[in-house]
Amino acid sequence: MKQLGSQTWKFTNRPVILGSSAVVGPEEGEGPLASSFDFIYDSLEMGEKTWEKAERALFEKASKLALMNANLEQEKLEFFVGGDLMNQIISSSFAARKLGVPYLGVFGACSTSMESLAIASMIVDSGGGKYALAGTSSHNCTVEKQFRYPTEYGSQKPPTAQYTVTGSGCAVVGVNDGTVKGPYVVSATLGRIMDLGLKDPFNMGTAMAPAAVDTITAHFRDTGLSPGHYDLIVTGDLASVGLPIAKELLAKEGIPMEQTVFNDCGLMIYDLDKQKYVIAGGSGCGCSAVVTYGHILSRLKKGELKRVLIVATGALLSPLSYQQGESIPCVAHAVALESGGEEA
Amino acid sequence: MKQLGSQTWKFTNRPVILGSSAVVGPEEGEGPLASSFDFIYDSLEMGEKTWEKAERALFEKASKLALMNANLEQEKLEFFVGGDLMNQIISSSFAARKLGVPYLGVFGACSTSMESLAIASMIVDSGGGKYALAGTSSHNCTVEKQFRYPTEYGSQKPPTAQYTVTGSGCAVVGVNDGTVKGPYVVSATLGRIMDLGLKDPFNMGTAMAPAAVDTITAHFRDTGLSPGHYDLIVTGDLASVGLPIAKELLAKEGIPMEQTVFNDCGLMIYDLDKQKYVIAGGSGCGCSAVVTYGHILSRLKKGELKRVLIVATGALLSPLSYQQGESIPCVAHAVALESGGEEA
Repeated sequence: MKQLGSQTWKFTNRPVILGSSAVVGPEEGEGPLASSFDFIYDSLEMGEKTWEKAERALFEKASKLALMNANLEQEKLEFFVGGDLMNQIISSSFAARKLGVPYLGVFGACSTSMESLAIASMIVDSGGGKYALAGTSSHNCTVEKQFRYPTEYGSQKPPTAQYTVTGSGCAVVGVNDGTVKGPYVVSATLGRIMDLGLKDPFNMGTAMAPAAVDTITAHFRDTGLSPGHYDLIVTGDLASVGLPIAKELLAKEGIPMEQTVFNDCGLMIYDLDKQKYVIAGGSGCGCSAVVTYGHILSRLKKGELKRVLIVATGALLSPLSYQQGESIPCVAHAVALESGGEEA
Repeated sequence: MKQLGSQTWKFTNRPVILGSSAVVGPEEGEGPLASSFDFIYDSLEMGEKTWEKAERALFEKASKLALMNANLEQEKLEFFVGGDLMNQIISSSFAARKLGVPYLGVFGACSTSMESLAIASMIVDSGGGKYALAGTSSHNCTVEKQFRYPTEYGSQKPPTAQYTVTGSGCAVVGVNDGTVKGPYVVSATLGRIMDLGLKDPFNMGTAMAPAAVDTITAHFRDTGLSPGHYDLIVTGDLASVGLPIAKELLAKEGIPMEQTVFNDCGLMIYDLDKQKYVIAGGSGCGCSAVVTYGHILSRLKKGELKRVLIVATGALLSPLSYQQGESIPCVAHAVALESGGEEA
């Protein structure tokens, strides 16, 4: 591994994503990316008695499917790096219990997807292990219950509000021994906390946009690349309010994002015109995870995309920090992926 | 970095702990290790209006003092790996905001101290960065409020209950360029989830003991060492109920712990005879952190200890998982430290 600039890790051995999974709930199954998901639950309950147990079932299914898709027996898995949005990341920890391998719990709110992938890739790239699973989950009802109001209240929301994705995405990262031709994990740019003093938990896109911009700017500064190097750059969950702000801020920074396709997982996962209930778009740990590990990886494998930068964004507030009048610290972690074939 | 067995990372470049800090509350300041702490608050409020703001102040002070003790300007710090027990690890994330460097949030309940040190050491050892700060915190009143009852209720507790340490410990891990003679981070053994079905949140020591035993057993299996290699092996917070159980289980596993001194940070930090209110002993993320980064590192620097294994234990329950009748998944992460001087 090599440090580029101050914030970026270049994975010199190019770890391979041996297999991945994306498991979602019924709403995501009605969205435009439905065909790229491995499993779609037909109810938010998932046959469980509580929302939290449902989210855990979701995560457990995704972790099993990722191993199956990677063609890796569970006994060969060596590390699990996971986290989620629940207090004490219980979905992830209970999934870890089933996996039975050394477990590193991580938390970066909705940036957990790329934080866990970056750490799993570092383990594999630096010789700490041959196989590591990275994964995360979110469930619309557990998040609504923890951060906002019980869904049963049916409370109204402002037009800046986002809809938490019910989904879990996992990826098996393995040593690049030449037998599997990508997709490869190429680099990761770790984000700093950006907090511009915003306090509205129903406007996360605006709060998180500066963090995405800071990390994207750092990525290009550290690597010496420009946006045109990538076929696609996606943010995690800025949605319809945050993405235009990020675009504006990046233009001010002089980053020529017009060289590439710049989109947001929270806008890609739903059809905002038809699925009005998602308001500004998707959010949650599961959002960038299922879009990346379902849709984007499948396009990388098919060769439709060559190089992609995923910039997962996270709002690190808690219900309590919000109630005590605190602003929302935000962070974004970026991971660059490449399809098989020649080195960049 | 090199993988030993399946669960252990050997840090081949031997990262150095350039400086550390241990900041505690008034109760810990009355315990037998008081003289090894960098700062002792004289009240649990710490001049803040809420317990959560107090914990954050504690963490911020510890992170600043660690940089000062490491003689490292804040601008030179490259990564912060931190976590705590609060929902959404807010103490850590708000401390990260002040530090202004790339931030990896981690969560392993009370094992967070060694999880963060292991990850920070991996970053430095594998060339991902030159300086990384690892840190964690806990505060008696934030934890009581979140996991049990508001302290104002004065509710009674069973004799197996432990007392959450008010404290934050941080360490600056740096590249071993030969200018600073230790202490060195030598290896880390990452733990698997152990869950024997226990459900009593007032008996964490018993729940966590099997996780400590599993990780200690893995450490000696992976490294080929025996307990006598270490002058001291400490668990994080098994306290007076859990430590004897761990001893019994290790004897059954055939690990000759009688070759070394085997103790527990939760027993070392308080005088259980005088400080009756701690009941079975200390617990919390801050427990192993302040004992390690205050007391143990200072003994390593003085040469009173040569080799130490810290086994931080964590109970990964949430108030909600407990209320829903779930058992307590536990984990333990171990890190081996060595004083300056010749290689082991």
